[in-house]
Amino acid sequence: MLTSLKNPKIQQVRALLGRRAEREAAGLFVVEGVRLTEEALAGGWRARLVLAGAQLSGRGRKVAAGFAAQGAELIETADHVLAALTDTETSQGILAVIEHQPLPLNPQSTFILIADGLRDPGNLGTLLRTAAAAGVQAVLLAPGTTDAFAPKVLRAGMGAHFRLPIWAYDWEQIAAFCHQTLRPPLQIALTAAQNGVPLWQADLRAPLAVVVGGEAEGYSPPAAAVADLTLTIPMPGQSESLNAAVAAAIVLFEVVRQRMPA
Amino acid sequence: MLTSLKNPKIQQVRALLGRRAEREAAGLFVVEGVRLTEEALAGGWRARLVLAGAQLSGRGRKVAAGFAAQGAELIETADHVLAALTDTETSQGILAVIEHQPLPLNPQSTFILIADGLRDPGNLGTLLRTAAAAGVQAVLLAPGTTDAFAPKVLRAGMGAHFRLPIWAYDWEQIAAFCHQTLRPPLQIALTAAQNGVPLWQADLRAPLAVVVGGEAEGYSPPAAAVADLTLTIPMPGQSESLNAAVAAAIVLFEVVRQRMPA
Repeated sequence: MLTSLKNPKIQQVRALLGRRAEREAAGLFVVEGVRLTEEALAGGWRARLVLAGAQLSGRGRKVAAGFAAQGAELIETADHVLAALTDTETSQGILAVIEHQPLPLNPQSTFILIADGLRDPGNLGTLLRTAAAAGVQAVLLAPGTTDAFAPKVLRAGMGAHFRLPIWAYDWEQIAAFCHQTLRPPLQIALTAAQNGVPLWQADLRAPLAVVVGGEAEGYSPPAAAVADLTLTIPMPGQSESLNAAVAAAIVLFEVVRQRMPA
Repeated sequence: MLTSLKNPKIQQVRALLGRRAEREAAGLFVVEGVRLTEEALAGGWRARLVLAGAQLSGRGRKVAAGFAAQGAELIETADHVLAALTDTETSQGILAVIEHQPLPLNPQSTFILIADGLRDPGNLGTLLRTAAAAGVQAVLLAPGTTDAFAPKVLRAGMGAHFRLPIWAYDWEQIAAFCHQTLRPPLQIALTAAQNGVPLWQADLRAPLAVVVGGEAEGYSPPAAAVADLTLTIPMPGQSESLNAAVAAAIVLFEVVRQRMPA
């Protein structure tokens, strides 16, 4: 039973939870809770290390055993150690250090999402969850976007991380991928609070990459430089804008609606 | 200059910020920051008390003066006192105690939103912001819904609180309002993750009240008892659900789309 917060493995988990640079250098991230670790295991992700608490449920035990059978180190861990690691109110008794191997990009993708400078972890997680539900085939994270593998993003993502190819790309890579690698090429569509094509007048059935801008500034200058069109959600009310994840949801599900077989 | 956290007015502001019962007993709530207080003033809301910091911008000074001209007490307040009151990282130098007088319900409303047990303040605030943008005419808060006038809800609402009639109703009142008071009556539509009418096959042009269920449980039994129909958002991806505020946005903006003049 691991009982000390000073244990080097615990120190590493804490560093992986807290710092993007640590996650990127190690190629690892941390997933907490029964539901999320279960999704990671079911999605074929591999764990390096699993910490299991004394109170862990039978369902959680199965997840821990599943990772261990694939070679993960499984360590029984004192509840107070798990509680100190999590920033949720109650620890769910399991925590897995996962090897970060992004899912491959499909060269025939016709529906992708580009996060352009989203800084709020909750918004990015909600966006990933929405993208997975809409059947988006890949999410590209443009420069200035918060790390998708931070704990808050993983929690809000509700498992989308384990089903979606998520790649951090610069704008040159994004443009090359959408306009050259993909066949047929994708049109890159900005979403803007005003002056774009009204969403319901745009034909969204052709291959499309939807750019979702940051919470405060909207889309970035390099996004505008590579975009093929701009979409605007008509708003009958007096509000000047929508939350970034909400605006993205409306656009993504309008694509779903237009592409739905009649 | 008010410099003590022990000042009785500061104690009252703190109580109003922190406790729903305090807000309801006093009929007051607290709005922080230049942008939100400006919206409250522009919307015709009255302040009982305004605390202004030494660093307050010219724009903020105008807001404070505007409230004071209508009879609000204006108190210059030390920065450390304002900073101690706010739970955001940086105080914006102004805070107003607003008299809670809900905007009147329009008896000809044809588009309303019912929040059914939303517990997350950020979600409720985002929902109100989305509703205002969609042109929703009233929001009814069913039992079990978190207080709409808590600081986090106000922040995420981005001013929607000052433009939308928001009323806490029990289900008997909700049913009476939708089915009897309003002429023509509104249909009450649940949103459910499965087994409802696919959203894009439903005719949403007739007068409608959209029920948005809680984050974990979805709609409540009393909501189901008074509902006229159930809507489901088709999800091509593998996710089992959407965030509550996201699902609501997709439904509300589908209503907007269907009602838009061609």
